[in-house]
Amino acid sequence: MLRVGYSANLAAEWLSDFPQGIELIRLPRDLDHDIEIDVWLPDPYPTRNLKIVPRLRGVKLVLSLMAGTEWIPGAMGPRVTICNARGAHNVSTAEWTVSAILAMLKHFPLFLDIQRSGEWKRRSEASAEYVGITGDTRPLYPPVMLEDLTGKTVLMVGYGSIGKEIERMLEPFRVDMIRVARTARENPKVHAVDELDALLPKAQVVVLILPSSPETQSLIDAQQFALMQQGTLLVNAARGSIVSTDALVEALESGRIRAALDVTDPEPLPVGHPLWKCPNLLITPHVGASSPEFARRALRVAANELRRYMAGEPLLNVVQAAV
Amino acid sequence: MLRVGYSANLAAEWLSDFPQGIELIRLPRDLDHDIEIDVWLPDPYPTRNLKIVPRLRGVKLVLSLMAGTEWIPGAMGPRVTICNARGAHNVSTAEWTVSAILAMLKHFPLFLDIQRSGEWKRRSEASAEYVGITGDTRPLYPPVMLEDLTGKTVLMVGYGSIGKEIERMLEPFRVDMIRVARTARENPKVHAVDELDALLPKAQVVVLILPSSPETQSLIDAQQFALMQQGTLLVNAARGSIVSTDALVEALESGRIRAALDVTDPEPLPVGHPLWKCPNLLITPHVGASSPEFARRALRVAANELRRYMAGEPLLNVVQAAV
Repeated sequence: MLRVGYSANLAAEWLSDFPQGIELIRLPRDLDHDIEIDVWLPDPYPTRNLKIVPRLRGVKLVLSLMAGTEWIPGAMGPRVTICNARGAHNVSTAEWTVSAILAMLKHFPLFLDIQRSGEWKRRSEASAEYVGITGDTRPLYPPVMLEDLTGKTVLMVGYGSIGKEIERMLEPFRVDMIRVARTARENPKVHAVDELDALLPKAQVVVLILPSSPETQSLIDAQQFALMQQGTLLVNAARGSIVSTDALVEALESGRIRAALDVTDPEPLPVGHPLWKCPNLLITPHVGASSPEFARRALRVAANELRRYMAGEPLLNVVQAAV
Repeated sequence: MLRVGYSANLAAEWLSDFPQGIELIRLPRDLDHDIEIDVWLPDPYPTRNLKIVPRLRGVKLVLSLMAGTEWIPGAMGPRVTICNARGAHNVSTAEWTVSAILAMLKHFPLFLDIQRSGEWKRRSEASAEYVGITGDTRPLYPPVMLEDLTGKTVLMVGYGSIGKEIERMLEPFRVDMIRVARTARENPKVHAVDELDALLPKAQVVVLILPSSPETQSLIDAQQFALMQQGTLLVNAARGSIVSTDALVEALESGRIRAALDVTDPEPLPVGHPLWKCPNLLITPHVGASSPEFARRALRVAANELRRYMAGEPLLNVVQAAV
């Protein structure tokens, strides 16, 4: 009988969708003896998993509940197949991205500061912030306090299933969408990543939603910030290491760009890190994929993969095939 | 020649779209003598206009640049025709509404507090906030930190041009939309406002985007808050007086509901007002219609009305016809 180990943090009732004919084995966080399992459903938090990896024997298949799986190959080696929960986080991560874009263009961080100070008259600061960050020097009356997303040019770096979901949610805002991915393709037009530098000057919003890999480390560095328009909004819903943190801090502190980050490098961002105090920035602490529907959606994807594995059918979301 | 008086705060270059054959007369904020004009383009700020109203003679037509015109009939009397700038604020006000809904469901106010404190580990507070306000007691893992808009039921009170624009922007989120307006109609289904109490318990988000009138004062009062689901998000993009402020403060302080307000009663909200300190609340200081495109859009609507007026054609956006 197939032995499926799952994190003790996952309520057994959520596994009711799983196929018959398996033995479900609960893995406590402080697992203190070796255990033989065929399939592993790790905890959403990598650090907890790394602690129990040395105790796991015989694992052939890892079914991650997350989209990002970069800690797994190093921990498990090349002899296991690794699948992610592709699709399960699309809605929540895409919603976070659209929410972050809108919150920044509407200057909500400043308005929350004004709310906390309890002074309605400080609203005029929004106008100064708008002119300061965008460099818009046209005569404008009444003073501008919010920006429209409608009509902006959005450069989306990464065009997988989450990227497509973000594009779908941005449709009513009639943005000009420029897409970049590893390889160029058509219908819709997607540019290859080596065109990134040529495309950066065209956008007012840059969204990062590409996988983390050795090639994408520091993809956005000082040179890329220099190519962006004054006041460009960088939104990172992917991985912190895709952006050079030093260059980001400098671009923010100089007032060149603004940013919304769900991910940082390092992560967690330590107390006292300069990013915490940067202007024109919204940080959320890696919560973009969170949703009350998270466990239900991710476990449905995992249950489906498990069913295919047992039936000998090809798996759908393989990020590493066993050698 | 038709004499058109305009606020000195509007740059003359924006009036270049205006028809030939008129005399444009700049009205300073401290206008100190009587002046004869046929058409008046007031300033966006009512208080400034009320100061110069006693100096204006012969006004037959008021072309407001705003959507809300409730100060004008009392100030100008029944013998003038009043038009608003219907359509000019649809995009920005609808964007504010969608942004406010998303920012609240994503708990951005809490995350900004966490960011200001510089402590990543406080992210667990988001989970406590989620459970506290929604009352969701299902087993959830990992702890829930954001909510999805996707799949929620939105009750839209008011279904004019801005309401339709909000509905259009919410389409990708597949919300269940319930519409309420003064009178019931079909295609799409709109309920009459006397059904409001019966519909309130169905929604997780209630959007107010109806005109202010004697009948809509305190439309949302203690009884209506009592009918809402635990944790319902009330979004007011209309006028502060549509909600009873005392009942709102009580509903927020008791943790029953949450709210996002671009308008308040009184307005401006005075220093020390209890609303400033209410939990689960986002206040923006009446900036929802602000946009870099504001003046261009509103003056285009006004120029079009002026052209029709001079040609003897019916005006499009009459909110009061002269008796």
